Amino acid sequence: MNDLPVTVLGLGAMGGALARTFLEHGHTTTVWNRSPAKAAPLVASGARHAATVADAMAASDLVVLCLTGHDAVMEVLAAGGAAAAGRTVVDFTTGTPDEARETAATVGDHGAAHLGAVIQASPADIGTPDATLFHSGPARVFAGCRPALERLGTVHHVGEDPGQAGLYDLALLGLWYDTTFAYLNALALAGGRGDVAPETFAPFAAKQMGYVVAAAEETAREVRDRAYPRGPASLAEHAPVLEHLVRLRASAKLGTAQLEDLLTFVDRRIADGRGDEGFTGIVEELAR
Amino acid sequence: MNDLPVTVLGLGAMGGALARTFLEHGHTTTVWNRSPAKAAPLVASGARHAATVADAMAASDLVVLCLTGHDAVMEVLAAGGAAAAGRTVVDFTTGTPDEARETAATVGDHGAAHLGAVIQASPADIGTPDATLFHSGPARVFAGCRPALERLGTVHHVGEDPGQAGLYDLALLGLWYDTTFAYLNALALAGGRGDVAPETFAPFAAKQMGYVVAAAEETAREVRDRAYPRGPASLAEHAPVLEHLVRLRASAKLGTAQLEDLLTFVDRRIADGRGDEGFTGIVEELAR
Repeated sequence: MNDLPVTVLGLGAMGGALARTFLEHGHTTTVWNRSPAKAAPLVASGARHAATVADAMAASDLVVLCLTGHDAVMEVLAAGGAAAAGRTVVDFTTGTPDEARETAATVGDHGAAHLGAVIQASPADIGTPDATLFHSGPARVFAGCRPALERLGTVHHVGEDPGQAGLYDLALLGLWYDTTFAYLNALALAGGRGDVAPETFAPFAAKQMGYVVAAAEETAREVRDRAYPRGPASLAEHAPVLEHLVRLRASAKLGTAQLEDLLTFVDRRIADGRGDEGFTGIVEELAR
Repeated sequence: MNDLPVTVLGLGAMGGALARTFLEHGHTTTVWNRSPAKAAPLVASGARHAATVADAMAASDLVVLCLTGHDAVMEVLAAGGAAAAGRTVVDFTTGTPDEARETAATVGDHGAAHLGAVIQASPADIGTPDATLFHSGPARVFAGCRPALERLGTVHHVGEDPGQAGLYDLALLGLWYDTTFAYLNALALAGGRGDVAPETFAPFAAKQMGYVVAAAEETAREVRDRAYPRGPASLAEHAPVLEHLVRLRASAKLGTAQLEDLLTFVDRRIADGRGDEGFTGIVEELAR
């Protein structure tokens, strides 16, 4: 059952955690790292050490890459990719969607299957349901390695495009930055005169952000259907509120670039005769 | 008990809902509106109609303003503000914090107490706990009218500055716009190639925004204490991720202004020798 042989190339904090988790689940696990010393503790726990990339690739049906970046992936494939023929290469290396597509093409040239992969977790969470893994590539390839990948965390197949897993990861990372930035801006504005304790404002802010979270699926359906019911307020009603907010933020010496962008999009939709529609429709301006 | 007399000036959808709720709770309620026809249904329900602003102001210890804007407030105070001497004026009119401060000063000149007020609710929710009311002004003044204001919804005193209630409202409104915009951007990025159904991405996005919500109080305490522990990543670790995101969004033809602002702040903190600190510290760059 547990004997799908697995190879892990790249034994940094994350790669090491992946290899250890496979080992703990009874997979025959082969490991390789540029500096071999990192393999020692895993070998002491029962892993096999591959002396070369080619040996590592050849050792297992499932070949996991967890390297320091796209350049390292291309070097490793140049060094021993041919030995992966007939195997499946799952690449957890952080990179752009375009880089994942290039990796997929190179892996394909070597006669191997490819799956893009992203981990949203710290190494300590690997092997628990709290580790979220995104995979993208052919559904058949994902189905083949799913049981082994499920050792690592909660897995999701998010599309056929090899770059899609990376796109999810980056879109979610960007969302964290943008949302956190929005919150810090709100704290800075509410506490502008220094007579408001930030923690007094926090529960109201949490509730307000919670509305966006609660509406996330409905908003996504509106985007999917390209239908934007007005909801609590129309774009024509949002515009003066946004203008007011821009003036207020400017008077508080806070940045207004983002709100001005938003107002531009809202004004453009109104000019297009969509002033009675809801806010979600501005997504079409983003994609222009 | 319920006989604190109340006057409501301004009987639009919201002002009408306020007057009706006071009436329903047994308060002697006097109403005034620029066009008197709007008073008729309330008078039919037992409200007293004031023929002039001065009569309206003089009629009750608690005088509520819910007008169309700051100019209307100043006109009404010019017309009859002197009659409010010794009363408390609670102003629910939408405006900027500076406008609220001007109103407070003018009310004070007339010998009346002032409370800034904001409603976060639709008129239909007035009189239910779902209506959130922010008030700002002297704590003593708030304490005096709190029992009557609690008829209207869940009340919060958020500071002594008369403009603070409006600042809360605007900060929260801005937070809704910024967070929604962040989410729409993430949807646009994740679905960039058109092979991802937006609703497939939504639960992950909701979870990601949920992290910011869950951390809101802790983040606020960091802002309060001006102490920014590194948490899961230091600013020095965030910088390359942000650079990567900027490149990715640019390649997807999505706006990068906000992330570039953020990166500028992160770089400035690092240059200040704070690269080991956490992300929350960028709040100090916003306030510069």
